[in-house]
Amino acid sequence: MSSSVLSAPAVLAKHRAMLEAALERAIGHEPAPLASAARYVMGWQDAAGRPAANAGKRIRPALCLLAAEVFGAPAADALPAAVAVELVHNFSLVHDEVQDHDTERHHRPTLWALLGEGQAINAGDFLYTRAIQALTDAAGHDDRRMRALGVLNRAIARMIAGQWDDIAFEQRTDVTVDDYLAMVAGKTGALLGAPLEMGALMAGADAPRAAALGLWGAQVGLAFQVQDDYLGIWGDPTQTGKSNSNDIARRKKTLPIIHGLGHPASRDAILAAQAGAGDVGAEKVADVVRELEQVQADRACRDYARAFADSADQLLESLGLPADEYELLRDIARYLVDRAV
Amino acid sequence: MSSSVLSAPAVLAKHRAMLEAALERAIGHEPAPLASAARYVMGWQDAAGRPAANAGKRIRPALCLLAAEVFGAPAADALPAAVAVELVHNFSLVHDEVQDHDTERHHRPTLWALLGEGQAINAGDFLYTRAIQALTDAAGHDDRRMRALGVLNRAIARMIAGQWDDIAFEQRTDVTVDDYLAMVAGKTGALLGAPLEMGALMAGADAPRAAALGLWGAQVGLAFQVQDDYLGIWGDPTQTGKSNSNDIARRKKTLPIIHGLGHPASRDAILAAQAGAGDVGAEKVADVVRELEQVQADRACRDYARAFADSADQLLESLGLPADEYELLRDIARYLVDRAV
Repeated sequence: MSSSVLSAPAVLAKHRAMLEAALERAIGHEPAPLASAARYVMGWQDAAGRPAANAGKRIRPALCLLAAEVFGAPAADALPAAVAVELVHNFSLVHDEVQDHDTERHHRPTLWALLGEGQAINAGDFLYTRAIQALTDAAGHDDRRMRALGVLNRAIARMIAGQWDDIAFEQRTDVTVDDYLAMVAGKTGALLGAPLEMGALMAGADAPRAAALGLWGAQVGLAFQVQDDYLGIWGDPTQTGKSNSNDIARRKKTLPIIHGLGHPASRDAILAAQAGAGDVGAEKVADVVRELEQVQADRACRDYARAFADSADQLLESLGLPADEYELLRDIARYLVDRAV
Repeated sequence: MSSSVLSAPAVLAKHRAMLEAALERAIGHEPAPLASAARYVMGWQDAAGRPAANAGKRIRPALCLLAAEVFGAPAADALPAAVAVELVHNFSLVHDEVQDHDTERHHRPTLWALLGEGQAINAGDFLYTRAIQALTDAAGHDDRRMRALGVLNRAIARMIAGQWDDIAFEQRTDVTVDDYLAMVAGKTGALLGAPLEMGALMAGADAPRAAALGLWGAQVGLAFQVQDDYLGIWGDPTQTGKSNSNDIARRKKTLPIIHGLGHPASRDAILAAQAGAGDVGAEKVADVVRELEQVQADRACRDYARAFADSADQLLESLGLPADEYELLRDIARYLVDRAV
């Protein structure tokens, strides 16, 4: 493997054409209305059905293909697993948007905002079927694909449990950092760990080593999510594609908020600003941000992200990979966590 | 196989204890809130979490187990597939209820009415993961389980396409009987055909014969759905567990309505009654029922159900099964289609 001369983003992008073609084949064009909705979600067409180029970064499938290479197999061996995990990620986005009533993502209307909640639920379910089918319909190695399917579905169950908590936490003001970490391990960690474990399994790695690589990915996911929480308040909306008042307006229990609720100086001010029903107004959102900065919630987030990244690095070291592979994966983790967007 | 001495309901019920235990194992108790929601949907507990006995008839998994027996294998060989298909059926019910805003099913509050739409979407997604896992985590025959998973996911995609059409048709007054049949083949036929095909595959049947048995089930599904449409208007709500004004109030394009829209004498009256937004009121629903009876939509439904049942019977004959198996399956089809509820 000569990828270690490439930068992290270049490594993540190097199989992009192969991946995108496989994703398009997996979605297909039938049944027409569902395939069309799925193609919009995947970024290949606009709301009017015209060709578009709005695809996301495809980080999860890139990790899956990379894991196969780390274990000595061609990336193509893990392609059905990579396709499956990206389709699952998009299914989860579509359902999340319905659940959170988000009307925009990355400057485009969300699917339910275009088609209604009922059809967006259908489109999400459809993406899930196509994810499973990418693995059931691939050729060869029934045993590896079956194991990868098992890993994927357990990860989806954890992801949904995290999403459940995320919604349930909106009504609570006693969420602890431990509660938060369990939620985030599901909502974000599960679907960053799974592609690595699946890619390793598709390459023929033994189950314990594949699982260990998955654990590293899940830990990187924690750091990634904490950074995302930070950017959700202090990021540049033109870069992140998300409003930086949403999380506070909807009473999301992000790490900065949990940090702020844990400080007597800011707790009452946050609770007062978020009291009542409906979205919190812009002026009160600004009050909350000011309170969070007073208790250095922004700095606490960066510290947590660093701590999780360090712990991921220790997990990676314990895998005993060759130096090139170790350094490559470490660089990718740093790139994912340190991203400005 | 000595089942031919049993009546159809007895045949469908004979593995009930084994099935129910396997369904409970598949759901498990973790993650707690999702498992609890799933246990409510499956009928094992009430809204307060107390034990209950509200399970449905489990027709689809019973057909799956029966298919294995018809192809000479013990029912237990198809148990993971039977569990998967019943969990998928329940996932689809939970999402349908959100989409249709149904607040009750079989005299119990629907899940979203208890927990909100967001968590009901999560619970449906969770049931889907457990369905796939029932097949990925079973022992032996990776190849058979992988084929059954492929059949199941293609059926789910068709079911979702049918559900998409069902929602889209609410806004249309030009739905033809052919449109209706394509919708119903997905919404109902796919998940009655799939368990039979999967059961046969789990028993080691060759793919073409398994698919032929599935086609028979899908055709029985058409007859079943037409009968369901009939009962949705003229059935006894205390028996069906569904209000017999719902379909008309929500402008569902059921076969009686499509029949009525096709007759000049009733078309204008139906359109006038269903004009405007929101649910159609009780008085206007009664007007529509009167118009439908004038043009004998009730009788047309019974005739269609009979025609589809006859066509299913011809498909069954062409399978060339031994006489006992043929008669058993024919009796089951009649039982399903002729049910009063």
